[in-house]
Amino acid sequence: MEESSSELQSRCYEEWMKLQEQELSELLEAIHGDHSNEENSKTRLLNLIQNCLQHFRDYSKRRNELAASDVSPYFAPNWCSTLEGSMLWIGGCRPSMFIRLLYAKIGKEIESGLEQQAKLGGVSATQMCLINSLQAEIIKEEDKLSAKLTSLQEDLADQPIALIADDENSHREENNRIADEALDNHAESTVKLLEEADELRIRTLKELILGILSPLQAVEFLAASKKLRLCIREWGRRRDNRHGRNMTDNS
Amino acid sequence: MEESSSELQSRCYEEWMKLQEQELSELLEAIHGDHSNEENSKTRLLNLIQNCLQHFRDYSKRRNELAASDVSPYFAPNWCSTLEGSMLWIGGCRPSMFIRLLYAKIGKEIESGLEQQAKLGGVSATQMCLINSLQAEIIKEEDKLSAKLTSLQEDLADQPIALIADDENSHREENNRIADEALDNHAESTVKLLEEADELRIRTLKELILGILSPLQAVEFLAASKKLRLCIREWGRRRDNRHGRNMTDNS
Repeated sequence: MEESSSELQSRCYEEWMKLQEQELSELLEAIHGDHSNEENSKTRLLNLIQNCLQHFRDYSKRRNELAASDVSPYFAPNWCSTLEGSMLWIGGCRPSMFIRLLYAKIGKEIESGLEQQAKLGGVSATQMCLINSLQAEIIKEEDKLSAKLTSLQEDLADQPIALIADDENSHREENNRIADEALDNHAESTVKLLEEADELRIRTLKELILGILSPLQAVEFLAASKKLRLCIREWGRRRDNRHGRNMTDNS
Repeated sequence: MEESSSELQSRCYEEWMKLQEQELSELLEAIHGDHSNEENSKTRLLNLIQNCLQHFRDYSKRRNELAASDVSPYFAPNWCSTLEGSMLWIGGCRPSMFIRLLYAKIGKEIESGLEQQAKLGGVSATQMCLINSLQAEIIKEEDKLSAKLTSLQEDLADQPIALIADDENSHREENNRIADEALDNHAESTVKLLEEADELRIRTLKELILGILSPLQAVEFLAASKKLRLCIREWGRRRDNRHGRNMTDNS
């Protein structure tokens, strides 16, 4: 039997999370590996970073293909824990969260005096400036997309949708058909917004890991980001199970 | 066996939707009823309006009690269709959507020349001014709460949560325990935000139906708002079923 779009979407998420686990092992292995030959090490780390970025692009492309015929679940997914769902901004994480996580990590390493080890805490003043202006820029872009989301949500209370709902004269079946058409049009705009949000997520990540951070810093940051993502999934599942929701136990 | 919080939350939603159907019948009956005795009719309509408002307050209170121990699902509910879920703003509709719906309805009635019938299309210039300044005020309040939501979401990528996830030295069980404490604190702030959003929804509705609209206009508006809510549920379910999701068929 052909898989439903719901099953395909759910599988796409599960495969992505498995890939995250695999990427995390590779990143940790690279961090703890041999860095004595600087040139070799740099090439290996850059390959790893490029791979992570390409996987993110592929995942976004696949998701957007699946969203084309069925977009609502990307704003209210039934394949992940409610904790993960409650963190969503236009179908994924806020791009500014990458920067927030980077700051948390830099702060921690400065506190524990790890900056001498030239890892993340060893970011230079120039890098700090670049991160800071990237943050300002990304927040502006986020605000624009948030405004588009607001406007899309409000459209459901406006013509034509609200008026179809309010129309007592037409037949129910006929109303449902007209509503479906209007909702399909609405969904098209929603898919475009999802794509724009994904582009902003990818752009933010790319500028951080290829434009600002050194290869080792970038690998450290990617590892922290994937650890956080995987932990939130695990904590979310545990909390859901405790409250009688175990629909996310299927992997 | 004691019901899980997930079952209680789901039941709370189902009961609320049933109440919406019942309220809609009463509102439609009142609209099509006898308005020849103006004083009688006004009292009857005001009673109905007060009832609807009180039910909304009771529902919000019940939801917030249930959220106290388990708040994430209010931001990513598994008891409604994905279309309904995709419209959510802090656990419910945007308060400004009430006003947007009112404008859509006024616009439609003016277009079809129904203003002579002194229903919604018959809003006075004074009323239009009041609606407009309420809208400006509510959007400002919405923006404040949206900023709080952003900040709460970003906190998950900041200390202490991100650093617990990144800590390779502690035991997994110990980390899970510390994470749970941090997530409990985070959930407390989230519950407060949900309450604030509910207060804004209730305040917006109250100012519209008791402060600005006439009793008959208010009843017309409430009926339109409930029709839209129920239609979106029905359309959302139909679309979910079509895509292989039928978890919302349990009522």
